[in-house]
Amino acid sequence: MSFLDHVRHCNAYSLADFVPFRVGSARVGWIRRPLTLELMRFGSLFHVFEDLVHLNPDLRTAEERTEAVDQALSALRGDGLVGRLRGERYAVMERPGTEVLIEMDRGAVTQFGIVNLGFHLTGVVGHGPDTRMWIARRALDKTTYPGHLDNMVAGGHPAGLTPRQNLLKECAEEAGIPEALAESAVPVSMISYTMEVPEGLRRHAFWSYDLQVPVEFTPEPVDGEVDSFTLMDIDDVACIVETSDAFKYNCNLVVIDWLMRTGRIDPAHPDFHELSVGLHQPWP
Amino acid sequence: MSFLDHVRHCNAYSLADFVPFRVGSARVGWIRRPLTLELMRFGSLFHVFEDLVHLNPDLRTAEERTEAVDQALSALRGDGLVGRLRGERYAVMERPGTEVLIEMDRGAVTQFGIVNLGFHLTGVVGHGPDTRMWIARRALDKTTYPGHLDNMVAGGHPAGLTPRQNLLKECAEEAGIPEALAESAVPVSMISYTMEVPEGLRRHAFWSYDLQVPVEFTPEPVDGEVDSFTLMDIDDVACIVETSDAFKYNCNLVVIDWLMRTGRIDPAHPDFHELSVGLHQPWP
Repeated sequence: MSFLDHVRHCNAYSLADFVPFRVGSARVGWIRRPLTLELMRFGSLFHVFEDLVHLNPDLRTAEERTEAVDQALSALRGDGLVGRLRGERYAVMERPGTEVLIEMDRGAVTQFGIVNLGFHLTGVVGHGPDTRMWIARRALDKTTYPGHLDNMVAGGHPAGLTPRQNLLKECAEEAGIPEALAESAVPVSMISYTMEVPEGLRRHAFWSYDLQVPVEFTPEPVDGEVDSFTLMDIDDVACIVETSDAFKYNCNLVVIDWLMRTGRIDPAHPDFHELSVGLHQPWP
Repeated sequence: MSFLDHVRHCNAYSLADFVPFRVGSARVGWIRRPLTLELMRFGSLFHVFEDLVHLNPDLRTAEERTEAVDQALSALRGDGLVGRLRGERYAVMERPGTEVLIEMDRGAVTQFGIVNLGFHLTGVVGHGPDTRMWIARRALDKTTYPGHLDNMVAGGHPAGLTPRQNLLKECAEEAGIPEALAESAVPVSMISYTMEVPEGLRRHAFWSYDLQVPVEFTPEPVDGEVDSFTLMDIDDVACIVETSDAFKYNCNLVVIDWLMRTGRIDPAHPDFHELSVGLHQPWP
């Protein structure tokens, strides 16, 4: 186990078993071949070809597309072909910052290979060798990665919010961070990767924020996503990341990026360049 | 002109006219086809094939290879086929951190498409909205980019020094920064790109360092590389980068990376992801 192992783990995929998913002229995702066959049952909603799935181009607005696909997702969920629907929608675009073509339930974005935006916030107390980092332990009843270590706050980016609105919302919900403190968080980088998993293709990007936490503030789990918070010495955090899988897989990347941005991974480290490239990958 | 234009400018290349250059089993560079024909005059030193140039594998040590290639480079320089030889050698490796296979004069690395390591240092005074940045103007008699704006200190990475030794050396030589101050510089990222230029292929990576400069310190040109230093408001620096080519081409990337690491480019910026990926590219 090494820093690089975590980065490589998040960047391991093959497109051999996937076909592109298009909305209009934009390629917005990748779908596994077996799932494309299941999509044929929805009549003309999806135009399924051997090397392409095209959403019916007669659906001309994001609203029309979203409503039609929502119904299909409910049926697919009934057959266990997509994940638990969350009632939280992600904006689907050709790339971040372009027109929203359709909104899709968070529970299906991996199966459709949609780009999944979000943020992670690193909370630290103190400076220099005395720096400590607030680490969350995920609730034991979470569907994904229960009990794993996590960054202080993290969340997917629902459609209709700005990155900052979502940050303030999640800071309050997950850790009881007051708005005045959350407002001081600084966006410092974007981490992106593509990872093949049994459910489909994770094409992820998240903004990484740094928050200098006053020593007198203690985060509190509010919405049940987090079991507990612990303030750890930064060397211990770095050691856990470098030697174990105790953190949820992608939280390791946030810590590695933080260690690189603060001079704690030496430039002469033989993996420095591969880490740097691996943290900031384009998507297929 | 935009931030993204600078990043794209540094990442524009085609390998159509290049062939790989190998030393032992490692591909260490790329050479334009016309130059490969010129290499045939050196007898068995280079094994020149249609799709490959291989350094004679009978040369078994880095010293043997370096000495033999140095002689060839002098001849090529005489015919104007490589750049002015600097008497400063770069370590040639398959990738940073691996065995040094040969050392090559800095004046020829672009023609051979060798990975070129270095560093740039960003010097800032103050914090928050009052932050100012020390900007160098390159000497008017420099061979490359005379009179252009530059980061406070920058330098290629000569063989045989650690990154930190080189940083301290260049800080003293280019800006008169005392060792105690230079020691406080923090390595914060690595920027890498591949750029086709008339001379060949620039495969560059440099470590970016941040230095918090005390308000009472003023940098002074020492070795003649820099014409003058100016302390600029950060908004002015950002504006110059976003709207002009006043900076030496790759210094723009250092400023953009700094603006992204300090929250001065908003996460909602439509180019955020492409900038992030473009600043941290793998090499061909």
